[in-house]
Amino acid sequence: MAVTVSAAFDGGNIAVTRAERADDIVLTIPRDHMSEFAQWFYFRLSGVRGAACIIRLVGLEASAYPGGWPDYRAVVSYDRSDWCRADTAYDKAADGGTLTIRLTPEEDSVWIAYFAPYSMERHNDLVARIGSAPGVTSEVIGKTLDGQDMDLLTIGDGPVNLWFIARQHPGETMAEWWMEGALERLIDPADPVARALRAKATLRIVPNMNPDGSRRGHLRTNAVGVNLNREWATPSLERSPEVFSVLARMDRDKPDFVLDVHGDEAIPNNFIAGFEGIPSITPAMTDRLAAFIAILDRISPDFQTVDGYEIPAPGKANLTVATNALAERFGCLSMTLEMPFKDANVAPDAVYGWSPARSKALGRDCLAAALEVLPQLR
Amino acid sequence: MAVTVSAAFDGGNIAVTRAERADDIVLTIPRDHMSEFAQWFYFRLSGVRGAACIIRLVGLEASAYPGGWPDYRAVVSYDRSDWCRADTAYDKAADGGTLTIRLTPEEDSVWIAYFAPYSMERHNDLVARIGSAPGVTSEVIGKTLDGQDMDLLTIGDGPVNLWFIARQHPGETMAEWWMEGALERLIDPADPVARALRAKATLRIVPNMNPDGSRRGHLRTNAVGVNLNREWATPSLERSPEVFSVLARMDRDKPDFVLDVHGDEAIPNNFIAGFEGIPSITPAMTDRLAAFIAILDRISPDFQTVDGYEIPAPGKANLTVATNALAERFGCLSMTLEMPFKDANVAPDAVYGWSPARSKALGRDCLAAALEVLPQLR
Amino acid sequence: MAVTVSAAFDGGNIAVTRAERADDIVLTIPRDHMSEFAQWFYFRLSGVRGAACIIRLVGLEASAYPGGWPDYRAVVSYDRSDWCRADTAYDKAADGGTLTIRLTPEEDSVWIAYFAPYSMERHNDLVARIGSAPGVTSEVIGKTLDGQDMDLLTIGDGPVNLWFIARQHPGETMAEWWMEGALERLIDPADPVARALRAKATLRIVPNMNPDGSRRGHLRTNAVGVNLNREWATPSLERSPEVFSVLARMDRDKPDFVLDVHGDEAIPNNFIAGFEGIPSITPAMTDRLAAFIAILDRISPDFQTVDGYEIPAPGKANLTVATNALAERFGCLSMTLEMPFKDANVAPDAVYGWSPARSKALGRDCLAAALEVLPQLR
Amino acid sequence: MAVTVSAAFDGGNIAVTRAERADDIVLTIPRDHMSEFAQWFYFRLSGVRGAACIIRLVGLEASAYPGGWPDYRAVVSYDRSDWCRADTAYDKAADGGTLTIRLTPEEDSVWIAYFAPYSMERHNDLVARIGSAPGVTSEVIGKTLDGQDMDLLTIGDGPVNLWFIARQHPGETMAEWWMEGALERLIDPADPVARALRAKATLRIVPNMNPDGSRRGHLRTNAVGVNLNREWATPSLERSPEVFSVLARMDRDKPDFVLDVHGDEAIPNNFIAGFEGIPSITPAMTDRLAAFIAILDRISPDFQTVDGYEIPAPGKANLTVATNALAERFGCLSMTLEMPFKDANVAPDAVYGWSPARSKALGRDCLAAALEVLPQLR
Ligand SMILES: [Ca+2]
Ligand SMILES: [Ca+2]
Ligand SMILES: [Ca+2]
Ligand SMILES: [Ca+2]
Repeated sequence: MAVTVSAAFDGGNIAVTRAERADDIVLTIPRDHMSEFAQWFYFRLSGVRGAACIIRLVGLEASAYPGGWPDYRAVVSYDRSDWCRADTAYDKAADGGTLTIRLTPEEDSVWIAYFAPYSMERHNDLVARIGSAPGVTSEVIGKTLDGQDMDLLTIGDGPVNLWFIARQHPGETMAEWWMEGALERLIDPADPVARALRAKATLRIVPNMNPDGSRRGHLRTNAVGVNLNREWATPSLERSPEVFSVLARMDRDKPDFVLDVHGDEAIPNNFIAGFEGIPSITPAMTDRLAAFIAILDRISPDFQTVDGYEIPAPGKANLTVATNALAERFGCLSMTLEMPFKDANVAPDAVYGWSPARSKALGRDCLAAALEVLPQLR
Repeated sequence: MAVTVSAAFDGGNIAVTRAERADDIVLTIPRDHMSEFAQWFYFRLSGVRGAACIIRLVGLEASAYPGGWPDYRAVVSYDRSDWCRADTAYDKAADGGTLTIRLTPEEDSVWIAYFAPYSMERHNDLVARIGSAPGVTSEVIGKTLDGQDMDLLTIGDGPVNLWFIARQHPGETMAEWWMEGALERLIDPADPVARALRAKATLRIVPNMNPDGSRRGHLRTNAVGVNLNREWATPSLERSPEVFSVLARMDRDKPDFVLDVHGDEAIPNNFIAGFEGIPSITPAMTDRLAAFIAILDRISPDFQTVDGYEIPAPGKANLTVATNALAERFGCLSMTLEMPFKDANVAPDAVYGWSPARSKALGRDCLAAALEVLPQLR
Repeated sequence: MAVTVSAAFDGGNIAVTRAERADDIVLTIPRDHMSEFAQWFYFRLSGVRGAACIIRLVGLEASAYPGGWPDYRAVVSYDRSDWCRADTAYDKAADGGTLTIRLTPEEDSVWIAYFAPYSMERHNDLVARIGSAPGVTSEVIGKTLDGQDMDLLTIGDGPVNLWFIARQHPGETMAEWWMEGALERLIDPADPVARALRAKATLRIVPNMNPDGSRRGHLRTNAVGVNLNREWATPSLERSPEVFSVLARMDRDKPDFVLDVHGDEAIPNNFIAGFEGIPSITPAMTDRLAAFIAILDRISPDFQTVDGYEIPAPGKANLTVATNALAERFGCLSMTLEMPFKDANVAPDAVYGWSPARSKALGRDCLAAALEVLPQLR
Repeated sequence: MAVTVSAAFDGGNIAVTRAERADDIVLTIPRDHMSEFAQWFYFRLSGVRGAACIIRLVGLEASAYPGGWPDYRAVVSYDRSDWCRADTAYDKAADGGTLTIRLTPEEDSVWIAYFAPYSMERHNDLVARIGSAPGVTSEVIGKTLDGQDMDLLTIGDGPVNLWFIARQHPGETMAEWWMEGALERLIDPADPVARALRAKATLRIVPNMNPDGSRRGHLRTNAVGVNLNREWATPSLERSPEVFSVLARMDRDKPDFVLDVHGDEAIPNNFIAGFEGIPSITPAMTDRLAAFIAILDRISPDFQTVDGYEIPAPGKANLTVATNALAERFGCLSMTLEMPFKDANVAPDAVYGWSPARSKALGRDCLAAALEVLPQLR
C-alpha cells in the first residue's frame, strides 16, 4: 500500500517535500494565506499500518513560534476522536529546525495535528445544538470575508453582561473545545452554577471568532492574513469584519466582563493575561482582575499563576489587542485566558498532554469562577 | 434579529436574490462549477424564529431535472441531525419555475437542503471509524483534483469480489447514508449476514466517488464540471481521476458484482437499473440481474420493480456509464441502485419522506441480497 | 483481599461448598424452588484479581440436562454488559459430574453465569421503554404468584394476529434478549419490515412468561416449581397464572401465528420445533410450518434445519406444551424456537459463543420471516 | 384495560386498599420489615392512559415523618429514567393523613415513587463499572443479613484517608445518585479535581450501606428492622453487619474525613450536620467543620447554611449515630450531608424538584470541597 499524505479537508494544513517511504517523510508547514505565520499543521497519513514512521517537519525556526517546539508532542488519532500524544523531538539545528514525530500506526491511516482539531462542521453542529436548547438565542451577527456566519449565542437574562469569545487565532483549537465545555454546562438544566449564572447574568458567547482561518487551516489569521487580535482599535469590514461585528454588538450590550480564550505555543501551563498597561486603569479594575485570577486558581487544579506573560508597564498596553481594547473601552474586567499546546505542567498527563477533555473542564470551571466574581463586577 | 442566509460550509449551495424579510426570501441554485447542472441546494437561514417564512427558489425550469420538483418536499433541520420534510410546492409557471417552501421555525436558525446532507467531515469520520474496525483495510487509492483522498475500504477475505461504489453524483447524499448503513452492518461482529459475507466474499467499498463535488455542493459533477458517470469508458487523470483510480483497482481485483448507488430526482421509489443494452450480454448475466432484483424485492418492503428507467434496446447501452461499462468489461453482475429524493411511494412516510435512516436500512438489506445471490455469481 | 461468592441478586443462583482459595472454589447449583430442576447458575466472584481461579460446579450429573455440559463454556463479565466465554471443561466422572471454569480475572470482581442474564429490572426498563413508544399499547394482563406483573405489549393494527411469547423457562435468558431485538426493530420508525408488519398485522408480545422464575434464578419453573410449558392444557390461577392469563387473552384475540421462544441446553444450534403430533393437524398447517422454517432458514445464516428435536409420531404430541396446545386449539401456525446455550455450530464464535447480540439479531430476522409468511396465514 | 397496581420489584413498596377505578385509588405504605417506620413508596400503576387519576396514600400521620408530606410532590416516570414531579397535596385531617397525587398519564403505565429509585441492579452495575475503571479497587468487605455483598470502592493512593458512605437509610435514594455523580467524577481521567484528589488522598467509598433495605423497599432499616445509623457505638454481625464490616475497615484505614450522605424528609434544602455534641470535640475539629461547610457553600449554589438541624448542646451528641461516633472514635472531620426529598428552596425547580441530576452535581461539588479542605485535615 502506497504511503500518502493529505490535508485537503476542513482545517488541514501541510506541504509534502517527500513521502515515498514511511520512515522518511519530510513535510513543511504552509504559511497562513497572505501572512508570514506558520505553525498549525493537520494532515492524514495513509498506507502506514505497522510501519515505523519517521515524519520530519522541517524549517521550523522560521515558524511563528520556534519556542513552541521544544518539549512539544504532536497529537495523533485513528478515529479522529481520541487524540493521544506521539513521540516527538525537536532539533533546532537540523534542516532549519526539525520536529521529528515517530510512531508505528496500528491502523492503515492516522491523523496527525498540532492540537486536536475542531472543524467548522463541528462548530456548526455545536451552534445548532446549543442554539436549539431551551432559553438560548442564536444569532448571526455578521459575515466573514469567506462568507461564513459569525455566530453569537446568548444565554440567561440577568443584569450583568458576561462576554466570552474564543479562537481569534484559529489554530488555537483548544479555545473552541473550551467553549464546548462551557456551553454544555450552561445549558445543563440541573447544573447549579449554570442555573445561577443564567438567573444573574446574560452570557454572550462567540464560540469561534475566526471561521475563515479555522476552515483554511491557519494558525493566526483570517482569510486575508489579518491577525484579528490586533484589530480591536479600528476594526474594518474590509480587513476584520469578525471583530467589527462583535465590537459593534458589544457597544450595544456593554460588557461587565470579557474572557477571550486562547492557546499559547510555548508556555506549558494555563494562565490569565490582563490589561495592566491600559491608560484608564483603576484600582477597582485591578482588584477585579486579581479576584478572578485568585478564584479560578482556587477552583481549578489545572490553573496556575506562576507562569505567564510579562505584565506591561503602565501605559504600555497594546490597545489593538482585544483584552486591552475592551478594558479601556468599557472599563470592564477583560482578560485573556491562555491554554497550552503542550501540557499543563502543574498536572502533566503523559498520554494526552493538554487535551480537549481538559480544555472542556477548564471551560466549566471558568463559569464557576465567573459566577463567584459576579458580585464584584458592578 | 436580521434575516440571514448562508451556504459557506461543507456542501453548501445557494445564491440570494433577496432575503430582507422572512416572508419574502428569493433564492437561486448556483450551477455546479464549470457545468450546466443545478439542482442541489443546502443553506442555513437565521433570524427567523417564529416567523412565517416563505422561501422561493426560482428559475428551476432551467435546473438539471425540472421533473424533480413536482411532489417534492424540502428537508429542514434545527440540530443538523433530524431532517424533516417541509411544506413545499412547485409552480412551473412562476418566475421560470418556483419551488416555494413554507415554515415557521421554532428556533432562531434552520438548515434547509435538497436531501439530508452528508459532509466530507462525516465522510472522514466514517472512513476513520470503519477503517479502524477489526478486519477492515482502509486505502487511499488516488487523489481528486482538489487534492482530496479517494478512499477504498476492504472487508472480508472470501473468493467472490463484491464492489460497492456510491455518490458519483455528489448531490445524491442518500447514497452515502446507504453506505453508512451497509458499512455499520458489515463490521457488526454479531450480525450473521455480515459474518457470512466476510467469510465468503471480499467486499471493496468506495463510500464516496466524488469528494470534490460533495464539498463544493455540486449536484452531479466533480471539481472541473465532469459527470463521473459518463467517464467509465475512458477515464483520465486530468478530467476524472476518481474513476481512473477505481477502475485501475477493479482491473486488479476483478468484480463479480458491482452495485453503484445513486439517487433519482424524479421517480418516487427505489429501483435497480441494469446493463441490458451492452454488446456482450449473455443469458447468464441477465439471469443474475433478475435474481438479485427478485431477492431484494423479497427482502425489502421499501424496494419495488414497477417504477424505474426504460430498459435500453439491445446494443444501445451507454458504455460510458459505470454499470454498463463494468458489465461489459468484466462480464459481471453490475447494477445501479436508485433511491428517491422524494419518497418511496410503496411505503410513504409523511414526516420524513425518503430519509437517511431508510437509506441506511436499504444498505443493510442490499447486503443480505448480495449474500443470497452470491452462489450464482461464479 | 478475601475471596467471596454471592448470588443474592436478581436472578442469582449458586451454593458454596468452599471458596477460601481462588484456585479451589467448589460450588453447587441449587434446585428451582419446589422442583427437581437445577441448571441455571449466576454468581459474583470477588477478591480474585490476577488469581488463577479454578471454579468447580459439582454434582451436575443430577442436573436437569447433564447433556448440556459437554462442550459448554460459561459466560463471564467484569462490567455486567459484555459477556465472554471462559475456558470450561466437563468431567462426567468427577464428583458426580464436574464443570470446571478457569480464568484469571483482570478485575477484582467477575460475574459468571450459565448465559448472559436478563434481570427483571432490565425487563421492567424494556417494557417501560417499548411501552412508551408511539403506537404501542402496554397492558398488565395478570399477576404472578409472587405478585409480579404479566406484561403484554401490542403493536400494529393489521388484521393478522401474531403472538410472540418468551422465557416460559426463566433460565433461558436468550429468549428475552431475542425479545429485546425484536421489540427494538418493531418500534423503529424507519425499518421497512417493521412498518409493513405494523400495517398488516397486530403483534401481541409477552416478553417474559415467567417473571417469578426469572427473579428467583430458576432454570425451568415458576414460584411454586411448576414448568409452565406443561400447563397449556389446563392452566390454573393456583399453579400457573402466567399461562392462564395469556391463554385467556389468546382466546379473545385468536392467534394466526405463535412463536414461543426458548433455549436448549444441549443442541448447539438454532432450530424450530413444530406441532406435528397433534390430533387435528392438517396439510395446510404442515405447509405453513414448512414455509416459515424455509423462509427463516433463507433469511438467517445463524438458523438451520439439520439439528433439532425428533418429530413426534402422529397423534403423539404432548398437548400440555404451548406449541402443541395452541396449534390444536386455534389451528394456527404455532412453533417453538430453540436457541443454544452453547453456540450455533453453523457459524461458531470463539469469543462469545451464542450471545445476546446474536439472539437479538435472530429476533429481528424472525420478524422478517413472519412478514414473509404472513400471506399464507389466513 | 383494567387498572392495576404493583410493587413486586426491586425497591417496590405499596399496599392497595382499592384500585378498581383510576380516579379512586387508595393505597397505604407498608412499614419496613420488623420496624415501625413507613414512608418510602414505589409502585407501578397500569391501565391508566388518558385517565384522570386520583391516587390517595392514606394514614400518613402514622408515617415516620409526617412533616415530610406538606409541600411534597411525588415523582413519576413513564420510562423509569426521567422522573418529574406530579401534582400532589397533603391533607393532614383526611383519613389519618392523606397524600393525594393527581395525574393524567400519557402512557398506559406510570411508575410513581417517593424519590427517583436507585435499584440494587443499578447499584451492581455501578460497582461493576466503577470497579473496572483504571486505578480503582473493588472489595466485598462483608455480607448483609439477606446475603448481599457490602461493596467498598477504593480510589487514589495519597496519604489522606477520605471516607464517603451513603444510604444507611435505604429510602434516601438521592444518596446513591449523589454517589454516582461523585464516582463518575473520580474516574474521569481528565477532571483536574479528581486527578488531584487521587494523587493526594485515598478515597474509600461505600455507595450503599444498606442493600437489604434498598431491595426490600424500606425507608430506614435493614432486613431485621434495624436503623443502621443508631448502630455505630456497638454494631453486631447479628443486627447490623453492614456497620460492623465498615467500622472494622475504618479501624484499619483510619479516616481523616467522613461524609455520610443522607436525605431529609422535611427540610427543603441541602445542609450539613456535624458532631458538635461529642465529648472529645476540639477547636481544631470545629474549625475543620466550619471550613468544609464554608467551602461547600461557596462552591455549590444548591447548598446553604440557614436551614438544618438544631446543633446539640455540648456532650449531648447521640454517639450511636455514624457522624458522632466516627468523630469521637477517630477525631476526624465527620459530617452528615442531608439532601431534600422535596426541593432545594435556595434554587427551586418547578419540574423536577430535587432530582437525581442535581444530587449527582452535588456529589461532584462535594469532591471539590473535599480537595479544598484537604490541607486542613492533618
Ligand atoms: Ca493566542
Ligand atoms: Ca444519479
Ligand atoms: Ca426450553
Ligand atoms: Ca436520613
